[in-house]
Amino acid sequence: METKLITVNGKPLGGGALPIIITPLVGPTKAALLDEVAAIVPKKPDLLEWRIDYFEGIGDASLVIETALAVRSASGGVPVLLTRRNANEGGQPIPIAEPAVVAMYTAACKARCVELIDYELSNAPEDLQRLRAVSAENGITMIMSYHNFQLTPGPAVLDGKFLEAERLGADVAKVAVMPRDPQDVLTLLAATYRASQTIGVPLITMSMGGVGSLSRVMGWVYGSAATFAVGKSSSAPGQIAIEDLRAVLATVRRAVAGG
Amino acid sequence: METKLITVNGKPLGGGALPIIITPLVGPTKAALLDEVAAIVPKKPDLLEWRIDYFEGIGDASLVIETALAVRSASGGVPVLLTRRNANEGGQPIPIAEPAVVAMYTAACKARCVELIDYELSNAPEDLQRLRAVSAENGITMIMSYHNFQLTPGPAVLDGKFLEAERLGADVAKVAVMPRDPQDVLTLLAATYRASQTIGVPLITMSMGGVGSLSRVMGWVYGSAATFAVGKSSSAPGQIAIEDLRAVLATVRRAVAGG
Repeated sequence: METKLITVNGKPLGGGALPIIITPLVGPTKAALLDEVAAIVPKKPDLLEWRIDYFEGIGDASLVIETALAVRSASGGVPVLLTRRNANEGGQPIPIAEPAVVAMYTAACKARCVELIDYELSNAPEDLQRLRAVSAENGITMIMSYHNFQLTPGPAVLDGKFLEAERLGADVAKVAVMPRDPQDVLTLLAATYRASQTIGVPLITMSMGGVGSLSRVMGWVYGSAATFAVGKSSSAPGQIAIEDLRAVLATVRRAVAGG
Repeated sequence: METKLITVNGKPLGGGALPIIITPLVGPTKAALLDEVAAIVPKKPDLLEWRIDYFEGIGDASLVIETALAVRSASGGVPVLLTRRNANEGGQPIPIAEPAVVAMYTAACKARCVELIDYELSNAPEDLQRLRAVSAENGITMIMSYHNFQLTPGPAVLDGKFLEAERLGADVAKVAVMPRDPQDVLTLLAATYRASQTIGVPLITMSMGGVGSLSRVMGWVYGSAATFAVGKSSSAPGQIAIEDLRAVLATVRRAVAGG
């Protein structure tokens, strides 16, 4: 197994020995976001995910760009991932319709105010194509994602999500699912491991919720290039505080490497 | 899933929220063992496993009993598990044949100088029966175990080992296997989870070696009642230092409980 690394501007993020740690930003305003960034950056995450579905100004493209640039200025070089998480996949309700979301992503790509974007595989194929094109033109890494907050689909469905992301030209394939029992966590890890051997792009996978948090600690052994941790506020169930996660990862890495 | 607890003298070991931590004793002499106990007891393991295949005096039943009593005096109430690990299953070569091993276990049971014994399922059925009888008569908990240092057998074989231990009257069924790839760790955890739902006795399971160390951190979520950690010296590949393991378990437990 070799974990493929996520690249930003053509350079790999992280050294590869451990997963990169992504911390979410969920502030509703520019001021709140900058407070979050100031609190989180000293904790040295590898990537900040701006969950723009939490942002009151999501409908104002110029405010989005201005805010993204302010976040970048404050991030001390930590790259920023722009994510509108669809309400169907665990995101917040937003006041704008999908064409405006696509326009917002497009404007952000053209302004090159973020380094990565995330867009769900469940969106219209033409929107996925459009954002794939504009992100590629502007050197922005595109994650294509699948989330299921109700359950963990079976192996064939999970395998299909990774394949679909690769087929649609994703730079990174992300799958996040909810376990109904501890076996479901193993199902997600096994699917990640299969994909790490068959899919040509980096993976981000996790099982959510309490028992799913196990995957946040060990998913990297199965090929997940990144794990989400709480910097200041959580964005999904089961996320662990970044300091605690880093300590656990260091111990687990020593044990895995030492055997 | 409910993890069944290991009992000693009819009382459960540990509170059940986390696995009990077992640390091995591998000293070759009484003096070396007492040094180990002195170093380990302050680290508060839940159980000490005296690996008597490392003990030079294994052939002298009265020295075994004397040493066990000295270990108990020094253990501050931490119960002691007496284990001769067969060389076929990862143990040390020993200078005595199986009848003398059975006689040694029998003498230890009758002297009630330890609280638990471990004996492999691969031994002769009549020896397993004999030790089951004498341990039961003396109120000593009996673990029946299966180890494979080469590979992880398939699900049916693993399921069979748990069933066999239960059928032979074990108080605890133990399975320790070597993974050949990260998927094998999932195979062991999945088998543990199935057994936790179908077998009536507590389980101790682990995947060994580097990647197997993941199971030492998360096996309890799948129904393993105990995990082995290094107090002073390791007795099998992949064991983590007790202080580190305890810190990781505390974080993982909070995450699992909090989701």
